[in-house]
Amino acid sequence: MMDTQELYDRGEKLRRKIFGNEAIDKRMNALGEFGAPLEHMINANAYGDVWSRTALPLKTKSLAVLGINAALNRPAEFRVHVQGALANGCTPEEIREVLLLLAIYAGLPAAIQAHHIAYEVLNEKK
Amino acid sequence: MMDTQELYDRGEKLRRKIFGNEAIDKRMNALGEFGAPLEHMINANAYGDVWSRTALPLKTKSLAVLGINAALNRPAEFRVHVQGALANGCTPEEIREVLLLLAIYAGLPAAIQAHHIAYEVLNEKK
Amino acid sequence: MMDTQELYDRGEKLRRKIFGNEAIDKRMNALGEFGAPLEHMINANAYGDVWSRTALPLKTKSLAVLGINAALNRPAEFRVHVQGALANGCTPEEIREVLLLLAIYAGLPAAIQAHHIAYEVLNEKK
Amino acid sequence: MMDTQELYDRGEKLRRKIFGNEAIDKRMNALGEFGAPLEHMINANAYGDVWSRTALPLKTKSLAVLGINAALNRPAEFRVHVQGALANGCTPEEIREVLLLLAIYAGLPAAIQAHHIAYEVLNEKK
Amino acid sequence: MMDTQELYDRGEKLRRKIFGNEAIDKRMNALGEFGAPLEHMINANAYGDVWSRTALPLKTKSLAVLGINAALNRPAEFRVHVQGALANGCTPEEIREVLLLLAIYAGLPAAIQAHHIAYEVLNEKK
Amino acid sequence: MMDTQELYDRGEKLRRKIFGNEAIDKRMNALGEFGAPLEHMINANAYGDVWSRTALPLKTKSLAVLGINAALNRPAEFRVHVQGALANGCTPEEIREVLLLLAIYAGLPAAIQAHHIAYEVLNEKK
Repeated sequence: MMDTQELYDRGEKLRRKIFGNEAIDKRMNALGEFGAPLEHMINANAYGDVWSRTALPLKTKSLAVLGINAALNRPAEFRVHVQGALANGCTPEEIREVLLLLAIYAGLPAAIQAHHIAYEVLNEKK
Repeated sequence: MMDTQELYDRGEKLRRKIFGNEAIDKRMNALGEFGAPLEHMINANAYGDVWSRTALPLKTKSLAVLGINAALNRPAEFRVHVQGALANGCTPEEIREVLLLLAIYAGLPAAIQAHHIAYEVLNEKK
Repeated sequence: MMDTQELYDRGEKLRRKIFGNEAIDKRMNALGEFGAPLEHMINANAYGDVWSRTALPLKTKSLAVLGINAALNRPAEFRVHVQGALANGCTPEEIREVLLLLAIYAGLPAAIQAHHIAYEVLNEKK
Repeated sequence: MMDTQELYDRGEKLRRKIFGNEAIDKRMNALGEFGAPLEHMINANAYGDVWSRTALPLKTKSLAVLGINAALNRPAEFRVHVQGALANGCTPEEIREVLLLLAIYAGLPAAIQAHHIAYEVLNEKK
Repeated sequence: MMDTQELYDRGEKLRRKIFGNEAIDKRMNALGEFGAPLEHMINANAYGDVWSRTALPLKTKSLAVLGINAALNRPAEFRVHVQGALANGCTPEEIREVLLLLAIYAGLPAAIQAHHIAYEVLNEKK
Repeated sequence: MMDTQELYDRGEKLRRKIFGNEAIDKRMNALGEFGAPLEHMINANAYGDVWSRTALPLKTKSLAVLGINAALNRPAEFRVHVQGALANGCTPEEIREVLLLLAIYAGLPAAIQAHHIAYEVLNEKK
């Protein structure tokens, strides 16, 4: 069994690899001591555990996570994961396919919002 | 440009290929004349248009659609797409990875319900 | 100003007019003393106040309430308001139009579930 | 059967009639090539098909769509449809009735947000 | 039985006690005549009735209301109730515990957004 | 730092204390090997970590978790936590207060469903 510090370290390392040091430094400092237990969950549980599992490639995980967060109406998290999807090797066309499925299953307003956010991130990257 | 009948036919054909004739006959008859415009949307828009696009493989689309429907709290639709995911070549382990991401992004109750439905479908298939 | 008992009585009377005495007797007894404050809210606030306002006809209110409850994923409440919509003079075709708008704005799974419930209620009425 | 281009054209024409050329030009250009399949869905499926059906007047559809989008927590889409509701002949008092039903069925926070957006749009129109 | 004016007055008084006169003056004037029926609901139903019940202390109610509004994805209402929770005697540590439960039951994105809002309110108070 | 096995064991022990051995044996076996990673999350993250924190009493956590799950429209999880709330010392009257707040913030249909489930659990306990 890993101890929770190992999980945390493995997760933080993966986060930094996907999103870059600058973004992660900023996020990990944004909530001070108040946010320490939350950051533990993000690093240890989300990235150290679930994202570190190997049965699906990171690219496919990114596409599923985009669909989940757009369906949940979480635009800030969705934006983060558009950046992550590009870092994990998704093309704009592949991201768009998930957003068109979203139009069918979650409705046009969810898909419109997701298109706007994705389009902004894609233009920032250029 | 395709006419809408061509889209409808292409979509119905894809639905039958993924879910089987018996399931689709049953679904397409379940709502009588009242459901005709809805069935048109499902066949023409969902399967004839979006699912027929080729930028992502059916298998990856299935995983995204599972995440979207579980996040939206739509258990009947989720069950249908577990069957579709298996028909499109997803393994139980790959489906499970989406459900673990769901636990992180949509919370444990969403993931617990999705696990129960997926497990039932997997056992029906055996 | 009305006192709250007047609001309650006016609301209960309107509920009984829309849904029938049998249904309302059953609903108002289903939760015993535990449900008394909730029943007060339903009668006084929902039916004695909002539903008793006159700027929109009951029929139009029913159609809006069907859309709201289907979007909120509340099938039991949706079923009640299909019955109410028919009592308030909506035709099956008018109800269906709301469900097709729902397919566009809330996605196909919401619309499919709503069609199934509406179709069952329509068949019970025959 | 109509071909999909006819549906698209009919839908675009109806959108322009309801929302005005300036708004639709802006929306249809906002997402570039990336948004072309989404715009197709909006014009052909939403406006060319569902909104073009005639069993309910546009005014009643607008009120149902306001309820659906407020329940779904989609403020940007809700704002658009307050503008559409006014163009389709709804009075501020009629729009408000839907928002009071929303308070009952979706809760006060949904109704408060919807009131603020509707009030802003009403003041812009003056 | 109380008349509805008494409920309204009792509710407005409790709101002013929790949130302060300045905040309530601003909120009660923000929507003009258009918002009068909504303000009636807030004062009479929410604060004059439910919040005035005595089976739970205000502090515990605040923690439940924070959980409910964060789960419902209502950031503006959540912010108001962080202020209310502090006024009702909740400590930052107690508020945080609800947000960590939220991470488990509603997912990390809901908890991250709620942490950011709570942290901002806590820093404004310093 | 604890290792994850210690967290898991501490969480499983707390779950058994709140819900009883029979219920937990049944839940932990219901999903076989397919559910092992999910059970790990439930025991280690939910109960071993968040529920084991001590800044709020279990009783208050139960009330917040009831509000969160009812707002999220998760009836199966809500039912489990009504049982947990009673085991953690909440009275029926205290549970009801959360459900009345729910009526205000999440709407009457959410509160009606939650009342029905809570009432059933209370009657099973008698």
